[in-house]
Amino acid sequence: MTDNSILSGIKSPSDLKKLSAEELNTLAEEIRNKIIDTVSENGGHLASNLGVVELTIALHTVFDPPNDKIIWDVGHQSYAHKLLTGRNEKLSSIRKENGLSGFPKRSESIYDAFDTGHSSTSVSAAYGIACADTLNNGKNYTIAVIGDGALTGGLAFEGLNCAGRSKERLIVILNDNKMSISKNVGSMARYLTKIRIQPSYIRAKSRVHSRLDRFNGLGRSITNTIRNIKNWIKINLLGNRKTMFEQLGFNYYGPLNGHDIQQLQSALKAAKYSKGAVLLHVCTVKGKGYEFAEKTPKNYHGISAFDIETGEPKSSTKGFSDVFGEIICEAAEKDKRICAITAAMAMGTGLSDFSEKYKNRFFDVGIAEEHAVTFASGLAVGRMIPVFAVYSTFLQRSYDQILHDAAMQKLHIVLAIDRAGIVGEDGETHQGIFDVAFLSTIPNITIFAPSSFSELREMFHIAIYDTPNIAVVRYPRGGELYLPDEYKYDGEDYSFVGNKKSRKLIVTYGRIFSNACIAAKALKAQDIDVCILKLNKIKPISENAVSEAMKYKEVYFFEEGIKTGGIGEGFGFLMYQGGFRGKFGLTAIEGFVKQARVDSSLAKLGLDAGGIEKIVREGMD
Amino acid sequence: MTDNSILSGIKSPSDLKKLSAEELNTLAEEIRNKIIDTVSENGGHLASNLGVVELTIALHTVFDPPNDKIIWDVGHQSYAHKLLTGRNEKLSSIRKENGLSGFPKRSESIYDAFDTGHSSTSVSAAYGIACADTLNNGKNYTIAVIGDGALTGGLAFEGLNCAGRSKERLIVILNDNKMSISKNVGSMARYLTKIRIQPSYIRAKSRVHSRLDRFNGLGRSITNTIRNIKNWIKINLLGNRKTMFEQLGFNYYGPLNGHDIQQLQSALKAAKYSKGAVLLHVCTVKGKGYEFAEKTPKNYHGISAFDIETGEPKSSTKGFSDVFGEIICEAAEKDKRICAITAAMAMGTGLSDFSEKYKNRFFDVGIAEEHAVTFASGLAVGRMIPVFAVYSTFLQRSYDQILHDAAMQKLHIVLAIDRAGIVGEDGETHQGIFDVAFLSTIPNITIFAPSSFSELREMFHIAIYDTPNIAVVRYPRGGELYLPDEYKYDGEDYSFVGNKKSRKLIVTYGRIFSNACIAAKALKAQDIDVCILKLNKIKPISENAVSEAMKYKEVYFFEEGIKTGGIGEGFGFLMYQGGFRGKFGLTAIEGFVKQARVDSSLAKLGLDAGGIEKIVREGMD
Repeated sequence: MTDNSILSGIKSPSDLKKLSAEELNTLAEEIRNKIIDTVSENGGHLASNLGVVELTIALHTVFDPPNDKIIWDVGHQSYAHKLLTGRNEKLSSIRKENGLSGFPKRSESIYDAFDTGHSSTSVSAAYGIACADTLNNGKNYTIAVIGDGALTGGLAFEGLNCAGRSKERLIVILNDNKMSISKNVGSMARYLTKIRIQPSYIRAKSRVHSRLDRFNGLGRSITNTIRNIKNWIKINLLGNRKTMFEQLGFNYYGPLNGHDIQQLQSALKAAKYSKGAVLLHVCTVKGKGYEFAEKTPKNYHGISAFDIETGEPKSSTKGFSDVFGEIICEAAEKDKRICAITAAMAMGTGLSDFSEKYKNRFFDVGIAEEHAVTFASGLAVGRMIPVFAVYSTFLQRSYDQILHDAAMQKLHIVLAIDRAGIVGEDGETHQGIFDVAFLSTIPNITIFAPSSFSELREMFHIAIYDTPNIAVVRYPRGGELYLPDEYKYDGEDYSFVGNKKSRKLIVTYGRIFSNACIAAKALKAQDIDVCILKLNKIKPISENAVSEAMKYKEVYFFEEGIKTGGIGEGFGFLMYQGGFRGKFGLTAIEGFVKQARVDSSLAKLGLDAGGIEKIVREGMD
Repeated sequence: MTDNSILSGIKSPSDLKKLSAEELNTLAEEIRNKIIDTVSENGGHLASNLGVVELTIALHTVFDPPNDKIIWDVGHQSYAHKLLTGRNEKLSSIRKENGLSGFPKRSESIYDAFDTGHSSTSVSAAYGIACADTLNNGKNYTIAVIGDGALTGGLAFEGLNCAGRSKERLIVILNDNKMSISKNVGSMARYLTKIRIQPSYIRAKSRVHSRLDRFNGLGRSITNTIRNIKNWIKINLLGNRKTMFEQLGFNYYGPLNGHDIQQLQSALKAAKYSKGAVLLHVCTVKGKGYEFAEKTPKNYHGISAFDIETGEPKSSTKGFSDVFGEIICEAAEKDKRICAITAAMAMGTGLSDFSEKYKNRFFDVGIAEEHAVTFASGLAVGRMIPVFAVYSTFLQRSYDQILHDAAMQKLHIVLAIDRAGIVGEDGETHQGIFDVAFLSTIPNITIFAPSSFSELREMFHIAIYDTPNIAVVRYPRGGELYLPDEYKYDGEDYSFVGNKKSRKLIVTYGRIFSNACIAAKALKAQDIDVCILKLNKIKPISENAVSEAMKYKEVYFFEEGIKTGGIGEGFGFLMYQGGFRGKFGLTAIEGFVKQARVDSSLAKLGLDAGGIEKIVREGMD
């Protein structure tokens, strides 16, 4: 089938420059359809990508990448950019193993100027690139495209504070869709809304000047009065009447219609010729062009494959997040001290119900994981029980706050860590593989690792009521996996499954317990007896568990987390120090893990049932 | 000697309320003198404390602590607060072992509402406490006192963004002295300066309203014209003309004279009766009342003991920071790609000279460690060689940026980590004992640990030119210690000192090498032969070093860093896995370390020469 689309003719951004305004509009439609088709098959970020189609086209027609650099904050809106920079034919591979990344990757294309994934980095990175360009005597532009949601992250503010008033060729594009993943929160969001609905404010300054001038023709008797008013206004009002971005030293243009290519092109050209850093305020509609996504964009932020006609997901199973949502609602009903905090992830972390039922005790802080923890510490000082529900990867932002604000004061806060372990298609920027290791470096922390919904329930209860200081419960993306019928969690720090007289012992925790059970079954069928020691409370490491493990000849530790500083390394060290002289094998993660289905990644890491079976059967060094 | 001062009569803040305005002014003088006397003896934070004496008095007369909570951002300005809350007689113990902390500590006094040390936490913590008070049906006020320097930290912005428009009894006091530790930087700082020098702006809004009303009496013929102008102004200007803090939803009062107790009291009372969150802009002079400190406050921020008459420090030795400053200047002279970044610590990290000589390549980003790393990553993408000089404890803020922005993209940035290890009198919030452990969890990082100035020089060179990805050089507070004459660094990953045929081996790195050498000498005198393996590149752990260590019967690892996830644990684990079956003793830090002299802390931890000697002689489990 011949592809006669305009899009198929775009091999690099330079091809765009030959197109008429009308053709660009047609191209926008084609891009939109391609994105909807692809995401409906592969899953991915839909609403954010649909919102920036025209902006992306305008950027690539006005600027000159890869000399000019475009940095996509978060990067979940870079699909149109990928389509226009030679990756049209590969889009169907997006988010698949060995396929295109769902985020910008410098290793993927020279047009991807900076890798992103976590929010609010773009202004800082762009300012660094722009400063380097100046130091290298370059004349290139650096453009950061940042959403209003990402603007709630402190890092973005730090970047704006440093970049404002700079002389670099730096353009910050505020992609204002009034949304983070859900509706954006906080004072900045309200402020932006005010600018959006009263755009006349922005241009008022020059208009007032000319209007004042018109009064000059009036009769002498009132001239003095008028002059007084004029002077008063000029001195006291106009000089100081600026948007927050101007107060931070940016040349501000906007608000603009983010779906009007020509208007965007004009503004971008004006920005190019401005002296000093520019902030361009562009208003877009998240989910633009796909009815369901426009109506409820939060449902179409990061999604799995769906039916285009109905907008319904192709499959849906109950996950740990959903169960966590139920549990915390039940707990909050009984205990008025329980508060829930999310960093713009109410839906993803299962807090939607809580946010409606317990409005007073629900705090969406924006994409502000640092604040979330320090704020939680404040609530804890005030005798509340704050629960911060957060994806493992984003908690990396809070390392210092957990250590310095919560742990050092021995405050009782609860961290409900979702998406712990391999997350799959989002790839390396989003893997939840560091939390155990970085939390382990911090004193006064207890970490629980449930393997099932019922364990989540019980461990959450222990975290709230029977754990001093910082209590962590971490659980994976997705739903419950296989568990043997005979296994039951009894609230102990660790559990045994299988024949305790075995020569071989598997030690593991969390989701991998399920794979270990399957492996043990398979080994049993091969007449290889193996016992499983499942850690329920993984930190502090139970000395009793270590002693028990020392009774075996061969111990195999499997950990879905980074090796250095992980539980496995610590556990093995303690065994050896205790006098263990058998074989200790540690299978854990080394280095970053690329995108792939979760099962595929686990298989590659030796953490699936087959891998565990093989390692335990054959032994390892 | 009888103490007839007013201060000696203040046992708790309630005693303040009996004093006349004149007595309060006298009290301010007494407090100031006491602080100068004490800091000149003990060292500590001088300039910041002298700046808030009147503000502290005003706060304690208008509010009702401990019911009302005052949170001191950073906390290095809490000495007056300590003097007024029952700790007058103990002030001479400040920053000493078992003495008062130089920062607020909830464990020290019920008047210390939240522990601080790192910057920019106060708004988040205060908002949490205020929300808890509301949920508990309280009617108490929560006050965050935050400097304009701390306002450059993104966490502060996250807090303001969430707290703005809140209905809590929350008062944020912006202590604006135009200074961070050095002169404050960034657009926000300039913006504050603008408000300071044109305070009329702030009150213009109400004045314009009343002025416009006065024109009502004019003749009919011009009434329409006037009315047009009035309406125009009201709609287009006044509604939108606000300080940035008002735009963020705060009721703004100020700027106020921060050294006028009565003015402050009036404003604080007004703030009390405001509806919703308040931001009070207070202008203070850092170092107020001590001539030398007023003139160059950055020299009197955190200082060691000094002579009051001359303002000169009682002792001064060349430290690692100074040498680093020399080295980076030499390197920058030869290589135009080298850039230096500091987070408001130019002087502390030894970058003063660099900041003058290489202005274009010097970046003071404010107290914004997150931005510093992401910005450095941008510079690295732009083919520069960024060096971020930072105290170990503050680098905790950058965990995610190091991992997600620099390491994942394999960017070559250099982290020059100062104050690595025990820092002494500043105590637990400032100890540099976590960096090795948390950096070890991140792939693509190499860490060097010099023990001397010449090693710092050579390792810095290797970090810049011969290390891929992230290169870290970490060195302690203070100066060079004892090194044996026969020892010379040869650029290898590890070095041996002593008899390699010994039964006992000490493994260590960094500053502790010196203590190990002294211990070995003492042991030798007791006929106990011990060899020392000094790690130069501590991460990745050298497999060869591990193999070498395995040749000894007893291996003792000494680490001035947190045990869990540290090098010692990993090193021991690798030895055991390699088949080592001798004795491995690990002496490292567990838990937070309280304030004390560095040598005293090291002794307590078993990391001084005496401790090492004892452990190696007697063996350990």
